[in-house]
Amino acid sequence: MKIRKAVITAAAPDQSTIPLQRLVDRDGQDKTALQSIVEETLSAGIEEICLVIAPGSEDSFRKAAGPHIGCLQFVVQSQPQGYAHAVAQGRDFADGEPILHLVGDHLYLSQTHQTCARQLIDVASDLGSSVSAVQATRESRLPYFGVVAGTHVPRHSDLYEVSRVVEKPTPTQAEQELVTAGLRSGHYLGFFGMHVLTADAMDAVDAVVAEQSAESSAKKATLSDALATLPTRSRYLAYRVQGNRYNIGVKYGMLVAQLAFGLSGTDRDQILTEMVELLAQHPGRIADMAGTSDASDGEVAGSPDGSGN
Amino acid sequence: MKIRKAVITAAAPDQSTIPLQRLVDRDGQDKTALQSIVEETLSAGIEEICLVIAPGSEDSFRKAAGPHIGCLQFVVQSQPQGYAHAVAQGRDFADGEPILHLVGDHLYLSQTHQTCARQLIDVASDLGSSVSAVQATRESRLPYFGVVAGTHVPRHSDLYEVSRVVEKPTPTQAEQELVTAGLRSGHYLGFFGMHVLTADAMDAVDAVVAEQSAESSAKKATLSDALATLPTRSRYLAYRVQGNRYNIGVKYGMLVAQLAFGLSGTDRDQILTEMVELLAQHPGRIADMAGTSDASDGEVAGSPDGSGN
Repeated sequence: MKIRKAVITAAAPDQSTIPLQRLVDRDGQDKTALQSIVEETLSAGIEEICLVIAPGSEDSFRKAAGPHIGCLQFVVQSQPQGYAHAVAQGRDFADGEPILHLVGDHLYLSQTHQTCARQLIDVASDLGSSVSAVQATRESRLPYFGVVAGTHVPRHSDLYEVSRVVEKPTPTQAEQELVTAGLRSGHYLGFFGMHVLTADAMDAVDAVVAEQSAESSAKKATLSDALATLPTRSRYLAYRVQGNRYNIGVKYGMLVAQLAFGLSGTDRDQILTEMVELLAQHPGRIADMAGTSDASDGEVAGSPDGSGN
Repeated sequence: MKIRKAVITAAAPDQSTIPLQRLVDRDGQDKTALQSIVEETLSAGIEEICLVIAPGSEDSFRKAAGPHIGCLQFVVQSQPQGYAHAVAQGRDFADGEPILHLVGDHLYLSQTHQTCARQLIDVASDLGSSVSAVQATRESRLPYFGVVAGTHVPRHSDLYEVSRVVEKPTPTQAEQELVTAGLRSGHYLGFFGMHVLTADAMDAVDAVVAEQSAESSAKKATLSDALATLPTRSRYLAYRVQGNRYNIGVKYGMLVAQLAFGLSGTDRDQILTEMVELLAQHPGRIADMAGTSDASDGEVAGSPDGSGN
């Protein structure tokens, strides 16, 4: 199965500025988050990318796309009707082909020489089914993720046949319904924000969107709602990629991502130096520092200087 | 002297996206860099702000201004004619009043309970002259800053009467012309990116801009070029503020600023925890890590898990 198209969703109303944020990538290059995400897909052999965006943000995203604008198409989700609906906006673009799907507010850092998207696409291409990237996720962090349960696929390390999908389960629900054998106790297979979706999976997405629309319900279908129905339609796998994902849509998300990129990249020594110097300069909260305001010479990355005047 | 107007320059062609970058401020609030800069001025009693921008960026800046849009006016610098020219665009807005001037690519972190802008404005209001905020700057970092030389003003700690201003001096030039008594050896008074400019100073800015225009020269006048002529016109002071400035327009500038804000703010413990966990997760560059790719369970902020499959 060849996968040459990607759908990136970046249409949530509160997330329109996220892909525009800048960071220094592992290779030391300054770029937007959008460029980093797009390059993740290109690294996996993707040729065409559909970006699902909110109304009014196309100009900003075009500017943020940098040199990759030629690979991009834009589809506007005119109303914020939920995650499944956003993915469904990529259906015409997919046109029956399998797609790689990424969320627009995550950055990925591989622990190997293959990017996370490349790892996932290699498995999905090989096996010809929908595959969600997952990672072992601690019980305490389940409220942030879609979680799958499944059984280990023989002779394929890190690969699972999915039997259940639940969006943001409680720890109790997870313990009762989502235990996957072979993981450390208290750990579950949480979504990584990266999926290969075949035409069957897109049908499942369409079905939950149609249902949501028919019920005129306030509840917005998630991608998990759609994927939960997929095991009854076709084979659906989960693959533990070797890497980390960073949600840059949460508080300090970009800081953590930037530190991770910096510490694993070409500028590691510089980042370590900056961290140590900042720790020396900021021994406590400002609120705790009354009376200590003469302690520094006020120069960033400078040496202590008590002799000022 | 009352100072109630501020001019922020953000018109450099390569810096149009900088004020749109998001960070978590010391108070734990997510905001754009522009909001943080605007709040720095508001903290000092500023009521009206003029933002000098490049053509085509007004919409982005309007969105980035958030709740402060009502205090803002925009003036477009139609051609990139240099820093002095950008400041001169604020002349009609100033209308003869003294202004606070900040650059749009710096963030400020006070070491006291008064913001840096408040510290500067208190001194300038009191003395009724133009005052540039400065900090003791190591010789090796002079190529990045405008540098002043002066004499200490008796009975005013941290205050200097400026006699010379040189933009980005070499260490040799600094040693010959810019030594200010009372500073540690090899240290000079470097600009902090924050000035109070009286009508006299704005006249000096206009004069160098007119000269640049008359000469049709390729050399673009800097603010330092203008301020260098100011001591012949009126009293011109430099004040060492108690704080740090962070240039977010340079590589890793935002990372360093975000770490500094985090380490001195309400979320200090969380930032320290993230730093330590990231150091544990990223013991080396990815390029150095061949064969170690199974060492982590791939969960950010997770505990090591070697039992995966």
